[in-house]
Amino acid sequence: MDYETFFGAEIAGLHREGRYRVFTDLERHAGNFPHATHHHAGGTRPVTVWCSNDYLGMGQHPAVTGAMHEAIDRCGAGAGGTRNISGTNHYHVLLERELADLHGKEAALLFTSGYVSNWAALGTLASRLPNCAVFSDSENHASMIEGIRFSRAERHIFRHNDPEDLNRKLALVDPARPKLVAFESVYSMDGDIAPIGEICDVAEAHGALTYLDEVHAVGLYGARGGGISERDGVAHRLDVIEGTLGKAFAVHGGYITASEKLCDFVRSFASGFIFTTSLPPAVAAGAAASIRHLKTSGEERARHQERVAKVRQALEAADIPTMPNDSHIVPVMVCDPVLCKGISDTLLDEFGIYVQPINYPTVARGTERLRITPSPLHTDADIARLVEALTTIWGRIGLRQKAAE
Amino acid sequence: MDYETFFGAEIAGLHREGRYRVFTDLERHAGNFPHATHHHAGGTRPVTVWCSNDYLGMGQHPAVTGAMHEAIDRCGAGAGGTRNISGTNHYHVLLERELADLHGKEAALLFTSGYVSNWAALGTLASRLPNCAVFSDSENHASMIEGIRFSRAERHIFRHNDPEDLNRKLALVDPARPKLVAFESVYSMDGDIAPIGEICDVAEAHGALTYLDEVHAVGLYGARGGGISERDGVAHRLDVIEGTLGKAFAVHGGYITASEKLCDFVRSFASGFIFTTSLPPAVAAGAAASIRHLKTSGEERARHQERVAKVRQALEAADIPTMPNDSHIVPVMVCDPVLCKGISDTLLDEFGIYVQPINYPTVARGTERLRITPSPLHTDADIARLVEALTTIWGRIGLRQKAAE
Repeated sequence: MDYETFFGAEIAGLHREGRYRVFTDLERHAGNFPHATHHHAGGTRPVTVWCSNDYLGMGQHPAVTGAMHEAIDRCGAGAGGTRNISGTNHYHVLLERELADLHGKEAALLFTSGYVSNWAALGTLASRLPNCAVFSDSENHASMIEGIRFSRAERHIFRHNDPEDLNRKLALVDPARPKLVAFESVYSMDGDIAPIGEICDVAEAHGALTYLDEVHAVGLYGARGGGISERDGVAHRLDVIEGTLGKAFAVHGGYITASEKLCDFVRSFASGFIFTTSLPPAVAAGAAASIRHLKTSGEERARHQERVAKVRQALEAADIPTMPNDSHIVPVMVCDPVLCKGISDTLLDEFGIYVQPINYPTVARGTERLRITPSPLHTDADIARLVEALTTIWGRIGLRQKAAE
Repeated sequence: MDYETFFGAEIAGLHREGRYRVFTDLERHAGNFPHATHHHAGGTRPVTVWCSNDYLGMGQHPAVTGAMHEAIDRCGAGAGGTRNISGTNHYHVLLERELADLHGKEAALLFTSGYVSNWAALGTLASRLPNCAVFSDSENHASMIEGIRFSRAERHIFRHNDPEDLNRKLALVDPARPKLVAFESVYSMDGDIAPIGEICDVAEAHGALTYLDEVHAVGLYGARGGGISERDGVAHRLDVIEGTLGKAFAVHGGYITASEKLCDFVRSFASGFIFTTSLPPAVAAGAAASIRHLKTSGEERARHQERVAKVRQALEAADIPTMPNDSHIVPVMVCDPVLCKGISDTLLDEFGIYVQPINYPTVARGTERLRITPSPLHTDADIARLVEALTTIWGRIGLRQKAAE
């Protein structure tokens, strides 16, 4: 076996399909988001970032960076161990309290990332609840899919955001068996939003646990940033609310919130929680500060929604095809992987605008897109420049299709 | 199904077995390691930490904390996205270069943790190399086991640190099939060290890829902190060297180093790499500073080894049973889960000394232990107090067995 040749051939295949990923080397400027320096082979250039998941720009908020500085000065760089072996820092304990409060749950459990929280929590629940059947939304994130796969539990895929299909599938399984319904609130690539209450109705009728991923909603929706489940007044109906500290909260890490016993169970049995070094104290401190700020300040959320509406409106007026949804995610549809990468490259090279092309496997083939995420920090001038650039490119390549086509 | 009752019963089982984990809530004092404040129900108390994996105390080194402060001021709190979608920060790029250089490899790839690096890299290699057979040391870490399990590849367990057994097992598999040999350099709980060169001899003879986990060795061994593979002059013989940024380097994160093509392959196909927010710029900056410092400074490593020898000697003289090994890990053997937890509690409550009890499933039942990790920062007085406390407790409970028993 010639391993190098094999690896080379697999990578060549990605190039041929137009989905080889080239990372954009950025240096964001704290205090000057969404502006950044792009480091490229020939040097550097200034860019405006239009695809960050630091949705509110909290990554440069003095409350957040200040808390990180303070924690470094107090406790140093890293945690120094797993949660069980010298790696529980007081900042972790405080952050878990903050998170439980955010979602109105008894307890919370921190993980090293949102990916790991889904993988480890779903993997542990589904594998250890005896003979558990899992019901998973067809559009669930890779981390949920892998966690469920890892559990080796029986898995049923229900139609995306379809409580009736879920109901039908739940009805086919023995009522006495443990069941787990796993879904998201805001789906990251299409930006559509789940009918959480209706899914809870169905799950409750069948005695199923509910597990909601709110990673693209925490900090952004609800009076205190508790996500769509808070906005819709249904947080108390969910057994597990999972979230991230790395998007709107703008730092790093993931978590679940749930009952004391459920969290203790996952804490005690999840390999991906137990056998890993815990987050740096400064990360925990920064995240807690971000959550605290967004619990009381609605300003960022209001401005965010206003900017999103403005971007949508401007794109609409310019006849740039976007996928409609009720969230803050603005997918500009290209529907071809090579063209999508080409437009993104032109935006970057010619206009100093950075929007990453989203290709398979992140989205289905034929639905390639530019995923635009307006933030409260994008100015009217930024929006005008974005729309002007897209209009120029669209005109140049004769693209006029609408998302609906 | 009454889920709460089920969770409660499972947790009660852990209590009965004496292996329910209670996390010790610590506040480490930057500038004053290994001293910390223990937050407990009744208030706080000062403690000396004897079980940190911040083996060299680099977590309080001004080069490391300074680099973190600077990165926060420059780039803010978090990365704001996955590596592919706006989350590649220039600090990540610089850190990957630093890591490739550390191990003399063409390339490196960062992950959110050491756990994820093993899980994702092994999982991807073993699942995507067609019909791959994996050969895994019987004492491999949970993250490697889960990665291999995740891959669903055929798995052969070879006897711990036994190249002959590996040779026999490799010989049973079709020579044409891809093969992957996965092992560690320093095993974390027993502290024993793999015969890396001999394992490479065997693997090479059978045309197998070699994957070495150096998480408990990087920063600590080798002239530049490249681990046991550097110390033994065999780094170039390993296809993949995996390591952590969260132990001796004292920050957070994991990585692999390997050929350009192998790294690009894992980068392109590993779900746990692709679909997760990248590490905060400050974490990458701090880790890079730590690696750079330890590449040129041998002082910490020399002092570390001297302290380890001193602790061993003092425990030996006091007739406290330790497991012999050639590394920096000093396992004090108790061999009973309840007693082990009891001794740890007494050390903490009565003597202000924190050493976490290590019970099943981290170690095999009947081999419960106190895992002591001396650092360059532990003074002679710290050592004297540790040994005195253990002697008092050992006398009190009449424990006199030796590890060898």
